[in-house]
Amino acid sequence: MMNHPPAEIGMRLADVDTPALLIDLDAFERNLHAMADNVSASGVRIRPHSKTHKCAVIARRQMALGAVGVCCQKVSEAQALVQAGVTDVLVSNQVVGRRKIARLVALAREAKVGVCVDDAGNAAEIGEAAAAAGISIDVLVEIDVGAGRCGVAPGDEALALARRVTSIDGLRFAGLQAYHGSAQHIRDYAARGRAIETAASMARGTVESLAREGVECETVSGAGTGTWQFEAASGVYDELQAGSYVFMDVDYAKNLDEAGRPFAAFEHSLFVYSTVMSRPVRDRAVLDAGLKAFATDCGMPRMADVESAAVLKASDEHAVVDPTASNASLTVGDKVRLIPGHCDPTVNLYDWYVCVRDDRVEALWPIVARGCVW
Amino acid sequence: MMNHPPAEIGMRLADVDTPALLIDLDAFERNLHAMADNVSASGVRIRPHSKTHKCAVIARRQMALGAVGVCCQKVSEAQALVQAGVTDVLVSNQVVGRRKIARLVALAREAKVGVCVDDAGNAAEIGEAAAAAGISIDVLVEIDVGAGRCGVAPGDEALALARRVTSIDGLRFAGLQAYHGSAQHIRDYAARGRAIETAASMARGTVESLAREGVECETVSGAGTGTWQFEAASGVYDELQAGSYVFMDVDYAKNLDEAGRPFAAFEHSLFVYSTVMSRPVRDRAVLDAGLKAFATDCGMPRMADVESAAVLKASDEHAVVDPTASNASLTVGDKVRLIPGHCDPTVNLYDWYVCVRDDRVEALWPIVARGCVW
Repeated sequence: MMNHPPAEIGMRLADVDTPALLIDLDAFERNLHAMADNVSASGVRIRPHSKTHKCAVIARRQMALGAVGVCCQKVSEAQALVQAGVTDVLVSNQVVGRRKIARLVALAREAKVGVCVDDAGNAAEIGEAAAAAGISIDVLVEIDVGAGRCGVAPGDEALALARRVTSIDGLRFAGLQAYHGSAQHIRDYAARGRAIETAASMARGTVESLAREGVECETVSGAGTGTWQFEAASGVYDELQAGSYVFMDVDYAKNLDEAGRPFAAFEHSLFVYSTVMSRPVRDRAVLDAGLKAFATDCGMPRMADVESAAVLKASDEHAVVDPTASNASLTVGDKVRLIPGHCDPTVNLYDWYVCVRDDRVEALWPIVARGCVW
Repeated sequence: MMNHPPAEIGMRLADVDTPALLIDLDAFERNLHAMADNVSASGVRIRPHSKTHKCAVIARRQMALGAVGVCCQKVSEAQALVQAGVTDVLVSNQVVGRRKIARLVALAREAKVGVCVDDAGNAAEIGEAAAAAGISIDVLVEIDVGAGRCGVAPGDEALALARRVTSIDGLRFAGLQAYHGSAQHIRDYAARGRAIETAASMARGTVESLAREGVECETVSGAGTGTWQFEAASGVYDELQAGSYVFMDVDYAKNLDEAGRPFAAFEHSLFVYSTVMSRPVRDRAVLDAGLKAFATDCGMPRMADVESAAVLKASDEHAVVDPTASNASLTVGDKVRLIPGHCDPTVNLYDWYVCVRDDRVEALWPIVARGCVW
């Protein structure tokens, strides 16, 4: 019941049915290499977040370029990737409830699997299931370094939970999860750096407290596409979890670099391909892609190849564009590329990547973890 | 590669894995019957919109209660429903492009299929493909009755296109599509009624122009969950396309009735089931459902069973709730039901409905047209 792909390998881009999710392979590969080169120079490891792409082909490509494994947010996501050949997955999130924990433990027999905890009772449940299965699971204690979401407080609370984890059969204390989510989207470069300086200092303090108690902290993991340079340079973080860099989106492209210019280390490589399905009046072109074809939580998508024409609004299956200021004709049947406002929830709407190079479909990659929310 | 359901038939609701998309079967069935009874009393037909539910089981239930067929927005959606036994589908939307039209025509051999047009060139392409296949497709000319999206202008433009359609081999002019999308969400009852009065008058004028030219207009189709009573009473509309009434959502529940109270003809029957996965501090509970588990284009979901606790924000896989004003404990592992802000794009995120009655899972219905955007 997975949907058929809207394209065939070898066909011209213009013949791809719409809406379709495109990868510009040249731009995508430049992004992969840019991150791999940067990280290898920095001396830290990268464990890219696969919640962005949900695709085993991409995960394996990242690992071929030096990534130690990938992150997932959900056990079902990890299951889909492991089934498709990914050998090392950190669920960088809490896994709560008997059924989920059972799946996590079963998966840990098939691949190297880690998980985060921020609650002693939850840690005990995971340990019990793992011990009953005769295995041990790597556990990172999540600390809240400023994001205000999950995680215990750095310092004493983290220390207490880490000590608890070390005492539970079936668990192996593997370090700290210290991801600062909200810092990713601070536009100003220096302000972004300051947020990570604070986060790194909280993580450092916790590592030192642990060391004083004789608890070794093997790994501090965190970072995203907005901040990875800062964590890489912090001397505290060992592992970077950036994910969106493979695709970029309208939101991340608003982040500024040191000189106050849009951050240009990575390029847009992900597009929603769409057809002008109606052109009822001069100042309105209607596209065949709407809320079920792109996420709008970070705003409307941007037209990739059409100057001065904006997506004004979207409904379930339509987007309305005002083309009057543009010199593109946008007549019925024309196809356009949209840059998603937010790549992660956009990818989750599709079953296939249509991978394009030189205006030809070169590959179709299944989005195996699409819809894996549980 | 369709995902496994997060539940088994017969299990207690509390054992369902999360996030999951629940249907409260009692409320859902009351909604189905309430609409069927109302429409049958009004003397018009109902052709519910399946873009809401994307489920053949529900489409067949609607038809068993008197619906003449269903609407879809996409050819792929229609294909999925026809494959699952739905016999009459109107694609209440433009179908543009050679590949899409080929699929539409192929489908019209298997079921009764109609389509909307608002462009003469597009109509000619559909006619050519249909005639080449030796079939005829029912075509509604879409007129813009105030929504400002697709559709030609009522009156002369519509007349010209309708005459054109009648002259094209492979097409049968079947009437007008006159849906007023934006009127659905006007909160005030009288204002909503006035918007439909204007729409109905535009449709009536067009029907009369057609009649003067000797073109019979068999059907005027339109209406949604916000306005169906007005179209039903208009004397102009023959067919109602309401869809969201089966589930309702936070947005539609904001519409007011004649007395200025929330409109109570239909009940919330659709819920996102979610687990408290973290409770790091007193004023923050974190749920395991985020942007990939519910749509936020109409705002955050509402807590169904917890008083005075609001979903404050959502990220890809998390929602943050402030429970301080509530007397619910919301401790790690607790499960809650969320009412989606907007049901249609929420349903599109899931492969299965987990159908619940008396706290037991009674059925699992596949969402066969999930992801069918093309």
